[in-house]
Amino acid sequence: MVINMAPGFTEEQLQHVIDRVKECGFQPHVTRGTERAIVAAVGSGGARTALEALGAAPGVDSVVPIAHPFKLVSRQTRGERTRVNVGGVIIGGEEAVVMAGPCSVESREQLFSTAIAVKAAGASILRGGAYKPRTSPYDFQGLGTEALKLLRQVREEIGMPVVTEVMSTNDIGLISDYADMLQVGARNMQNYDLLRQLSKCNKPILLKRGPSATVKEWLLAAEYLLAGGNENVVLCERGIKSFENEMTRNTLDLAAVALARQLTHLPVVADPSHGTGRRDLIAPASRAALAIGADGLIIEVHPCPERALSDGAQSLNLDEFATLMKGLHAPIRALVSSPATTVSPR
Amino acid sequence: MVINMAPGFTEEQLQHVIDRVKECGFQPHVTRGTERAIVAAVGSGGARTALEALGAAPGVDSVVPIAHPFKLVSRQTRGERTRVNVGGVIIGGEEAVVMAGPCSVESREQLFSTAIAVKAAGASILRGGAYKPRTSPYDFQGLGTEALKLLRQVREEIGMPVVTEVMSTNDIGLISDYADMLQVGARNMQNYDLLRQLSKCNKPILLKRGPSATVKEWLLAAEYLLAGGNENVVLCERGIKSFENEMTRNTLDLAAVALARQLTHLPVVADPSHGTGRRDLIAPASRAALAIGADGLIIEVHPCPERALSDGAQSLNLDEFATLMKGLHAPIRALVSSPATTVSPR
Amino acid sequence: MVINMAPGFTEEQLQHVIDRVKECGFQPHVTRGTERAIVAAVGSGGARTALEALGAAPGVDSVVPIAHPFKLVSRQTRGERTRVNVGGVIIGGEEAVVMAGPCSVESREQLFSTAIAVKAAGASILRGGAYKPRTSPYDFQGLGTEALKLLRQVREEIGMPVVTEVMSTNDIGLISDYADMLQVGARNMQNYDLLRQLSKCNKPILLKRGPSATVKEWLLAAEYLLAGGNENVVLCERGIKSFENEMTRNTLDLAAVALARQLTHLPVVADPSHGTGRRDLIAPASRAALAIGADGLIIEVHPCPERALSDGAQSLNLDEFATLMKGLHAPIRALVSSPATTVSPR
Amino acid sequence: MVINMAPGFTEEQLQHVIDRVKECGFQPHVTRGTERAIVAAVGSGGARTALEALGAAPGVDSVVPIAHPFKLVSRQTRGERTRVNVGGVIIGGEEAVVMAGPCSVESREQLFSTAIAVKAAGASILRGGAYKPRTSPYDFQGLGTEALKLLRQVREEIGMPVVTEVMSTNDIGLISDYADMLQVGARNMQNYDLLRQLSKCNKPILLKRGPSATVKEWLLAAEYLLAGGNENVVLCERGIKSFENEMTRNTLDLAAVALARQLTHLPVVADPSHGTGRRDLIAPASRAALAIGADGLIIEVHPCPERALSDGAQSLNLDEFATLMKGLHAPIRALVSSPATTVSPR
Repeated sequence: MVINMAPGFTEEQLQHVIDRVKECGFQPHVTRGTERAIVAAVGSGGARTALEALGAAPGVDSVVPIAHPFKLVSRQTRGERTRVNVGGVIIGGEEAVVMAGPCSVESREQLFSTAIAVKAAGASILRGGAYKPRTSPYDFQGLGTEALKLLRQVREEIGMPVVTEVMSTNDIGLISDYADMLQVGARNMQNYDLLRQLSKCNKPILLKRGPSATVKEWLLAAEYLLAGGNENVVLCERGIKSFENEMTRNTLDLAAVALARQLTHLPVVADPSHGTGRRDLIAPASRAALAIGADGLIIEVHPCPERALSDGAQSLNLDEFATLMKGLHAPIRALVSSPATTVSPR
Repeated sequence: MVINMAPGFTEEQLQHVIDRVKECGFQPHVTRGTERAIVAAVGSGGARTALEALGAAPGVDSVVPIAHPFKLVSRQTRGERTRVNVGGVIIGGEEAVVMAGPCSVESREQLFSTAIAVKAAGASILRGGAYKPRTSPYDFQGLGTEALKLLRQVREEIGMPVVTEVMSTNDIGLISDYADMLQVGARNMQNYDLLRQLSKCNKPILLKRGPSATVKEWLLAAEYLLAGGNENVVLCERGIKSFENEMTRNTLDLAAVALARQLTHLPVVADPSHGTGRRDLIAPASRAALAIGADGLIIEVHPCPERALSDGAQSLNLDEFATLMKGLHAPIRALVSSPATTVSPR
Repeated sequence: MVINMAPGFTEEQLQHVIDRVKECGFQPHVTRGTERAIVAAVGSGGARTALEALGAAPGVDSVVPIAHPFKLVSRQTRGERTRVNVGGVIIGGEEAVVMAGPCSVESREQLFSTAIAVKAAGASILRGGAYKPRTSPYDFQGLGTEALKLLRQVREEIGMPVVTEVMSTNDIGLISDYADMLQVGARNMQNYDLLRQLSKCNKPILLKRGPSATVKEWLLAAEYLLAGGNENVVLCERGIKSFENEMTRNTLDLAAVALARQLTHLPVVADPSHGTGRRDLIAPASRAALAIGADGLIIEVHPCPERALSDGAQSLNLDEFATLMKGLHAPIRALVSSPATTVSPR
Repeated sequence: MVINMAPGFTEEQLQHVIDRVKECGFQPHVTRGTERAIVAAVGSGGARTALEALGAAPGVDSVVPIAHPFKLVSRQTRGERTRVNVGGVIIGGEEAVVMAGPCSVESREQLFSTAIAVKAAGASILRGGAYKPRTSPYDFQGLGTEALKLLRQVREEIGMPVVTEVMSTNDIGLISDYADMLQVGARNMQNYDLLRQLSKCNKPILLKRGPSATVKEWLLAAEYLLAGGNENVVLCERGIKSFENEMTRNTLDLAAVALARQLTHLPVVADPSHGTGRRDLIAPASRAALAIGADGLIIEVHPCPERALSDGAQSLNLDEFATLMKGLHAPIRALVSSPATTVSPR
């Protein structure tokens, strides 16, 4: 932390800051400029938050953090990248993983036909919502336990691990019995009660980035899971809110995928369905996500998107998904083979 | 809903949309333009979500909602504004209400001294956090039950109703025993499990706007509470995330206060502490909030902000709060008394 | 500037940074932490930008600015607040100033009737667009010189100073002949060519904040004007872009009005028409702007908004404007007169 | 356009809207719902803006545009994609184009060494700033004419076409004499005076997206160029402003690259230097941009980034650029080769 004294600070105010830094368990190092002074608080034993409160001390302009606030998720903490085993499928290994399936589980037929198709096309994990977070209380809220049972049936008959969202701490035990991976939805990324409970469960977690979460806040949400004891965490970028929400539902922040992979040892996947909100952008965004280094993708697929009970407009049908999978590894466009050797003189 | 056909749509595609609109329980009204056509879905008996999925039907460009999606919170639903009774204090009446107190309850002395001071200055409800949602798992998480007990003591000894945040469905019963009003924090605004449980409790709810929630999403979160049976809801604007987060922590969206009061019958208050994140802006922002029509304010106050265990940089000390209260009703700056009667000729 | 070394930096890398800081004309002060080190660059004679480039030096994590980058606009530079004289009307004095008029000048009759009405209602400066920045090339682009002539006629016959937007450096001379104040529109806030030319003209400037400009960028745009020699600058907050753009066109950042008045000596006004984009929010937002300390308002008024050639949906008609002016100084809502003295025991 | 009547509208208000729609040159089609009514305005002969103003008519809730407002840039207008010839290099053809070079031209040696290196690595167009838009008036503003001369020398000696930014209408003629392509910077995207003048020049234009421009606003800025007669326009996505600006300078909106290529016939390139603001993210973001379909890249390269007079922290050095170019076409990560055939039963 660097405490930045305001122009016109007094010696007494500076001394007070120095004293408080010591009280908080750090060593103060003062640097004086022409108009200002800064006090760097050095050491690791003290209380970071206590230093932040010094922003309220007289003569202080601002308190600037220097080190990253996350620890266990940091790439520096661990020598190698974490691999998360989801029912036998490894996320974070050399190969990328595709999770696919309907937004909501709607019926046995819908789920089975989707699972068979996405597996045939190359997906390795089945997604499907049993409990749905919906903006309006009047929208379809998911089939609940019935959906969980269908997911388990498909899981066993088709042989695909299953990921589904958990919205309530009361459902953690139940869902853990049915699914191979539990998803924390974007709106619950900072539901710390849920994170704390999930840190104690023995299932891998798919942690979606909140729509207005900075990368730092996202990694600190993961830190809650690791700090509580659950190291099997997969991060998922799913689009953030920006001013551009007319043409695309969210803004897919693909650079954050690369950045999160640099800063942490955790696997990072991307969700081009929510990330763009448009069926016609899912395929190109999927290619870009893999090109930037994502460890996998999660994609909404429905046998008949226009009849889907949720998220139809951003779901692919079965054929479209198969086409997308085939195109994922098409070679990237070549560069102009040789630069123009001459330009016209003037 | 208006279904907007894409340029180049076929008659077959249009007919399909017409059929689906009927299936969904609406009457389709088609208007043909030069290149496009729109299908308006009329009626109130059908499934709105089903229409939305038509965005995935062939030949459809977009589906545009026309009516607002919220019902019970709508101003049109009720003849008069809702007044919420918080332990005898009315929010939403003719007079504005000030809630004040520390971000976190830290000790008996801290809470008592703050309560006495803010009451003397004119605040009518005491705020204080027992369970704190913190971005980092390593930061102070609140005193929990101990804080609840202190809140109850102060409540009874000083005679001020109390509002405190609830983060977990498991705590609703406990906190209801101690507090007069339960706060849903900004990060939990779309924690639907929490909202559903709170809709069944008999305490008033202070519903903070999420940092990336549109006004529509905020009102739909309130709709969850009303739809479940709890009509005692106070909305709270507390700043949204924007690109300006260096100089101010959030962007206080005061127009949303006026807008929410137009669209709903619920009281709306503002939180200038979180809304600006700066002690020096709390007083002017408080004045502006009242001027735009807020039914009240919620302000963080601490006997010694620079020693606060959380949010010190955006807390006022006791004297500053007293000064703020005195200034709240200072007259607004007069206008230039008479327009310049002459301008210099050229 | 503080140069923040990355964890794992080498002594050689640190020495290199120290050497470069000296070369750039600053004194380096090194503070070593447990894992990191920071180098504070002290002094005022060196090149700030050169230090920024050190972000690219090996072993450097980030370069953090400490002091504000603006100078002439800074409140510390000048002992008192600047008052800007616009054709005899003072902006930045004790009284607030209202500028009002049509978005675009459309006809003599439209302009005269508006000017007479807004003056009668208490406005002291007439606004009206001659050259209009329009998102689409197919929309009405303003009457140009004809509008300027009408503005001058009204100015002289009615006796109101006039403000109008300048979009092109080629028009500065011409518009200066007709108007008392030149407006830099939000989209041109970082049109540095225009700012440089305007810094040499002898007319006051109304500098609108860009829709995605931070407060710092806005003040640095003003710095261009002052650095070039024009000290008669009025800042104008007119709403920023945020994710909430369905219900309101922009997000009016009223805290930025208070903040800009703290950081600079320049007058700051607010534009509730563009800031909200809704006729029904202009009056409450105007009150709030004055309550937060704005030195004035600029409001769009049209005799018949629904026939306006631009911005009709955010313009008031003449009666609505008169009503707004009467309400501007209505007292702010009173507080609950006394806190609840008893709360019900449990 | 659809005019959406507010609940409670009167027949008189509806009739008024119908009359106005006719006056504006459109045919009104009315659809009545249970509480609301909508009036669709059909036809292409009328004034779109006049309809928008109906938002101010009594009884009207909102006016919703249905068709896209852009015409000449629309993909539907032209049968095939536009190819832009920049001094012999085609942008928008089958192969992608890399533009590279320093942010600012600083010296003959700097420019030559960069040009030789980037050409050798596979770049086909040289970028280099002569006139620099800088946030602060105290930062390096570019070498101006001297830089233009150096660009021409390099252009002819090395045989690479050159792109450079134009900030002032007064410089268009001069820069056209020296460069093969003129860049409109992000801050000038809505500088309509500049766009209008450039629409009359005979050089290709690189039109950067503004930091807060929606895709629609960006395409309408291009529409200004085409409407004025210049069809040689290349769109450039360079990152937008979002709340995440601590870890990355901007948010690179790669989905907008795919979207702009769908909506228009113009080539679209990406700028990963400005788009991320981080040297370590330029390579992965470049790969992703090509994977999503970009017609090219523009990348900042400097022989010694830590001594660059501008944008050092987001510039690659010569070796890093060569490495990036080699990696651009590395195959995308393979998928998990076969889905898990069995999952463990419970």
